[in-house]
Amino acid sequence: MAGGPGRPEGDELARVKIIGATGYGGLGIIELLLRHPGFELTALAASQEVGRPVSEVWPYLEGYCDLPLLAADSPEFIAAEAEAVVSATPDGVGQLFAGRELAAGRRFLDYSGDFRFDSLDIYREYARRLGREPIHRAPELLPRTVYGLAELHREEIAAARLVGNPGCFAVSCLLGLAPAVRHRLIRPEGIICDCKSGVSGAGKKPSPGHHFPERYDSMGAYRLSGHQHVLEIERELSLLAGRDIRVSFTPQAVPMCRGIMSCLYGRLPEGVGQGEILAAYRDHYAREPFVLVGDASRPASTADVRGGNRCLVTVAADERTGTFRVVSHLDNLVKGQAGSALQNLNLMFGYPEDLGLAYPGPHP
Amino acid sequence: MAGGPGRPEGDELARVKIIGATGYGGLGIIELLLRHPGFELTALAASQEVGRPVSEVWPYLEGYCDLPLLAADSPEFIAAEAEAVVSATPDGVGQLFAGRELAAGRRFLDYSGDFRFDSLDIYREYARRLGREPIHRAPELLPRTVYGLAELHREEIAAARLVGNPGCFAVSCLLGLAPAVRHRLIRPEGIICDCKSGVSGAGKKPSPGHHFPERYDSMGAYRLSGHQHVLEIERELSLLAGRDIRVSFTPQAVPMCRGIMSCLYGRLPEGVGQGEILAAYRDHYAREPFVLVGDASRPASTADVRGGNRCLVTVAADERTGTFRVVSHLDNLVKGQAGSALQNLNLMFGYPEDLGLAYPGPHP
Amino acid sequence: MAGGPGRPEGDELARVKIIGATGYGGLGIIELLLRHPGFELTALAASQEVGRPVSEVWPYLEGYCDLPLLAADSPEFIAAEAEAVVSATPDGVGQLFAGRELAAGRRFLDYSGDFRFDSLDIYREYARRLGREPIHRAPELLPRTVYGLAELHREEIAAARLVGNPGCFAVSCLLGLAPAVRHRLIRPEGIICDCKSGVSGAGKKPSPGHHFPERYDSMGAYRLSGHQHVLEIERELSLLAGRDIRVSFTPQAVPMCRGIMSCLYGRLPEGVGQGEILAAYRDHYAREPFVLVGDASRPASTADVRGGNRCLVTVAADERTGTFRVVSHLDNLVKGQAGSALQNLNLMFGYPEDLGLAYPGPHP
Amino acid sequence: MAGGPGRPEGDELARVKIIGATGYGGLGIIELLLRHPGFELTALAASQEVGRPVSEVWPYLEGYCDLPLLAADSPEFIAAEAEAVVSATPDGVGQLFAGRELAAGRRFLDYSGDFRFDSLDIYREYARRLGREPIHRAPELLPRTVYGLAELHREEIAAARLVGNPGCFAVSCLLGLAPAVRHRLIRPEGIICDCKSGVSGAGKKPSPGHHFPERYDSMGAYRLSGHQHVLEIERELSLLAGRDIRVSFTPQAVPMCRGIMSCLYGRLPEGVGQGEILAAYRDHYAREPFVLVGDASRPASTADVRGGNRCLVTVAADERTGTFRVVSHLDNLVKGQAGSALQNLNLMFGYPEDLGLAYPGPHP
Repeated sequence: MAGGPGRPEGDELARVKIIGATGYGGLGIIELLLRHPGFELTALAASQEVGRPVSEVWPYLEGYCDLPLLAADSPEFIAAEAEAVVSATPDGVGQLFAGRELAAGRRFLDYSGDFRFDSLDIYREYARRLGREPIHRAPELLPRTVYGLAELHREEIAAARLVGNPGCFAVSCLLGLAPAVRHRLIRPEGIICDCKSGVSGAGKKPSPGHHFPERYDSMGAYRLSGHQHVLEIERELSLLAGRDIRVSFTPQAVPMCRGIMSCLYGRLPEGVGQGEILAAYRDHYAREPFVLVGDASRPASTADVRGGNRCLVTVAADERTGTFRVVSHLDNLVKGQAGSALQNLNLMFGYPEDLGLAYPGPHP
Repeated sequence: MAGGPGRPEGDELARVKIIGATGYGGLGIIELLLRHPGFELTALAASQEVGRPVSEVWPYLEGYCDLPLLAADSPEFIAAEAEAVVSATPDGVGQLFAGRELAAGRRFLDYSGDFRFDSLDIYREYARRLGREPIHRAPELLPRTVYGLAELHREEIAAARLVGNPGCFAVSCLLGLAPAVRHRLIRPEGIICDCKSGVSGAGKKPSPGHHFPERYDSMGAYRLSGHQHVLEIERELSLLAGRDIRVSFTPQAVPMCRGIMSCLYGRLPEGVGQGEILAAYRDHYAREPFVLVGDASRPASTADVRGGNRCLVTVAADERTGTFRVVSHLDNLVKGQAGSALQNLNLMFGYPEDLGLAYPGPHP
Repeated sequence: MAGGPGRPEGDELARVKIIGATGYGGLGIIELLLRHPGFELTALAASQEVGRPVSEVWPYLEGYCDLPLLAADSPEFIAAEAEAVVSATPDGVGQLFAGRELAAGRRFLDYSGDFRFDSLDIYREYARRLGREPIHRAPELLPRTVYGLAELHREEIAAARLVGNPGCFAVSCLLGLAPAVRHRLIRPEGIICDCKSGVSGAGKKPSPGHHFPERYDSMGAYRLSGHQHVLEIERELSLLAGRDIRVSFTPQAVPMCRGIMSCLYGRLPEGVGQGEILAAYRDHYAREPFVLVGDASRPASTADVRGGNRCLVTVAADERTGTFRVVSHLDNLVKGQAGSALQNLNLMFGYPEDLGLAYPGPHP
Repeated sequence: MAGGPGRPEGDELARVKIIGATGYGGLGIIELLLRHPGFELTALAASQEVGRPVSEVWPYLEGYCDLPLLAADSPEFIAAEAEAVVSATPDGVGQLFAGRELAAGRRFLDYSGDFRFDSLDIYREYARRLGREPIHRAPELLPRTVYGLAELHREEIAAARLVGNPGCFAVSCLLGLAPAVRHRLIRPEGIICDCKSGVSGAGKKPSPGHHFPERYDSMGAYRLSGHQHVLEIERELSLLAGRDIRVSFTPQAVPMCRGIMSCLYGRLPEGVGQGEILAAYRDHYAREPFVLVGDASRPASTADVRGGNRCLVTVAADERTGTFRVVSHLDNLVKGQAGSALQNLNLMFGYPEDLGLAYPGPHP
């Protein structure tokens, strides 16, 4: 394999360091990189369990990845060589380290909202919704960041040194709505995103609501008064539409581990029906390696994408009531997180976009 | 307890026979009647396992209900004395027996669509959507039937001899939308019912989609081209609105056993907001024993109603986008089925409406 | 209903106060008492959320039980009238309050190990195994306490003022082994208790191991070096055998909410086989309201007892290998906890032992 | 990669045909082979859905494996070129095709009991236990077959043309007991295998017991009167011990998808304790790529091996009671089935034994 953009000379592997290695997002990218022919893990950082091998904290990695956990601000981690850093961290962490790593010549990909917006104003609004202080620690970097959804920003990502990986709900909504908004197959007002997620999306930290006995046979909506993911959905849809788009968003937790199913609703424009929408979606995604389009004749479920990097979009307009309807399915930990991250890294390092990703997940 | 309408003289218990005793709907009403002070089970019918005690088929009933399973058309079952018959059966069965039982002076409550409509035309449309032959075996009874949702038809149910118990999805949608439609707090066009159900709603019959390994970590929408429950939702809403109402309905299966969560969407009329809707809902349901109203300040989930006969309605309008939004939660096997059936029986026999039902389910 | 032992004069209800009302054990006894014709809840204590109604903490109780949560050492809770106190608390709490409540003339039932042993030495050993300080705060009460497994100590419980409710694993093992040990149908050495539990047994407190994503598809053994429940199992079996009995105990967590299945193994004595054991078990438990005996011809599962107060004991000796084998099934939160507690309260107050308990749980 | 035994000349991939491609066992080997650098899938056979692409039956494979499903006895399937055939089929199927494929010069690996025994007598006993007719359709092949557990028969497998892949329960019991039986660290009488399995082990066919609502919160033992897997466990242990070994086996179903946890019990020989056993196990498995040994100081669960090809063996003797105890954990669909199959194919074709298998499963 020849050296691509950002890769070392010759056939050497591109080296990656991970911050936040022990959360589900960190594990996800470790699992993918272990099987990838073009990347090599060189250092892991975490905020807890520093000093122990990652495989002591997560025994399933024993023998496959036994790197020690370092502090992200330790000399060892800083000195570890790498061409890329993945910050698989919650909001507010990546912005502490991005500047340092970029200055060292490394590409930087962050999982949180820290670098999803190239505008400080939007970031501040985002932080407010999260209940965080509306202060960014590296505002000077925001103009350089790229929103890391390859299906929308492939070329910018390939050229970027700083990428903000998208939110899992946002990926499902954007891939489900982008063709409709772009091609005016949905009226711009009154779009609804009814989004159900498995609870791995909430991370590894135990909470009363995801304690097994409380969750095993219970579903519920949350943050009905405003979820922070709305911002990136609205921003990207507005860019696509060339006008301001607002969506109503209802996040819901269901008793499963992996999977997001988003039912996306709106009103059909005059004269637009199922046939036209389906054709437009098929055309729009014809060359996308990770988006499948189907219609209601084919029963679909999150099992069709579980463990893999695909988003399955089912077009099912309800012409009887004039309702636009698309159902979007993905694995929140793969296409909704680590898989998209690797897709971005592939682009950033000149590898085929689907390298290490073009495989079905295990079933069942 | 004094003899009420339809009850035997004096303090005697009203006797109940069940057709379809071994399905989840039959078990549900058996469980409730075993603890009810005013009813007594006298005979059980089923289409399979005839001749065996119900407690051999379902060992958890051993010692609590050991009645033998009879054929619904056997002389023993016909001769068994009762003041009421519950037909906990799929579509097409109740219509075979209702006439006979009514002629014998018994009240008849049916779980299926057989008696949800007092119009043969609507029944035929319903049957077509189900893929059934659009023929009703007892069309002469339809004008006498009452739609068995007590919150909408309390007085008619109390006076009825023939009741069609509502569908589980329909209960959740109707209780969630009725005040809005009645009081014009939602625009009549473009109403969306996004409904998630635990899989017990599909009954006890094994199927590939509900085989544990296929279902345990997978959710999906089904019948996107038209679910039969839409008809009863539209009919009742139209009656409430005094005009034709259509809804778009998306049924979804999630990996849990009990629970329906329906997210109900529409457009807010000019000048209508969360405060007005919440007040109207609270007022509308102020005297209902089995409907609770809340707002988004209180996190809600199906766990709040699991095992009990309540419907929890969360009002959460999204004023920013002009979106009407209500989330309705219930236990599909209780308020969505056997609990509503007992509520109806209580009304039909002059018992307090909540007798035997005013208890929380087991948690967790 | 006439006044029984410990009940107020005339037909009045016996009043109950609960300490630890908001844990699963507290909820379990609240649910049972709400439907019991002879008891009335008068006060609830908890260590957290003091001042709020219990139904704010657990919304499913709203309208059914809205008592405020008090501090157990508050004047209001102390002054609240009651004939009985249930301490549904972890180890170390009941011993702080038992003396006070007994002195006020109340019966006291504790869920933890605090009063399972009438010997201070055994308690100390028990505390050590738990990793607790081996100090009992009310050692003078120990000689008066009774082990609260009605099937073994019915008469003592009926006469007791202080009862230590048994551990959930211990109930399953003792009911599964008692007839064999008593009637010498198992060799006294080498008895093995292989015990699987749903995770509600670990209580409501979130932990990494019971976080939904970690638990939903994972099982494991724990405390392999010694579980505190062994002590009460060994003590009771030794009393039954009239000699020292030791058991090897392997507690395991499986991804379910409710249910314990204990596979109990040993060696068959010379000449003892399945027929003899089954007959002895049937005879031994013939008059027990809450123990069912079956054999391997009847497939059994925890679903047969879920939500109810029964223990199902399946006798399945393996004569080919000379192995004694019995499988014991119960609901850890009912027969394993709150149900046994109510069974004990019924005995202590002269009610029929099965009052409020003789009902099947909801299925599925 | 140079041509190894059985491989085509030069660097070509070894070609594989699969019979029974649409069951969980077939999917498992398809998933593994898709990512393996040395094998290529050339044809799939199934008994249902013949004529459709496998990816229509299992949409998650779309784009990754779209081979059509053929009948196993069709000319197309017979003519399809291959160096190996995997018969991922239930009992009785592989024996119909093995002779034909071996005669065509192909290696043949069967998942069922058809080729686990090189003795017709044992096969007949096995078939009787299964309730099958005790007739083998290719008895002449039995002397040539090898039991496909690499950890016990590595050299024979490498040289074999016909391999009987082991049963999933058997793998867990044999890997957990082999060192003890070989090195006399357990008394030969009274060995107990208490084995819990996720329900994917029962295959993809829906059944009442694995219908989601019946299984989601229920566990139970089954085939208490004799499970067919006992035979292969006893046969292999007897070979290791050099004397007749019998085990008592209790298979149990728990509400999870993937995972087997086997608690293996026996009596400790005089003078043997935890330290000696642990040392012996560590030594025995020191060079095994897919067996990990731990002790009770490290909490273990099936999550540690889920999705991967490892067996985790926890040594936890209970010296206080003289009880030998080992807990064995694996993924029934990987190390218990398709993973072991690929391990065997690697051996049979001269690839590194862990090629395509040395990766952790996805977590969570």
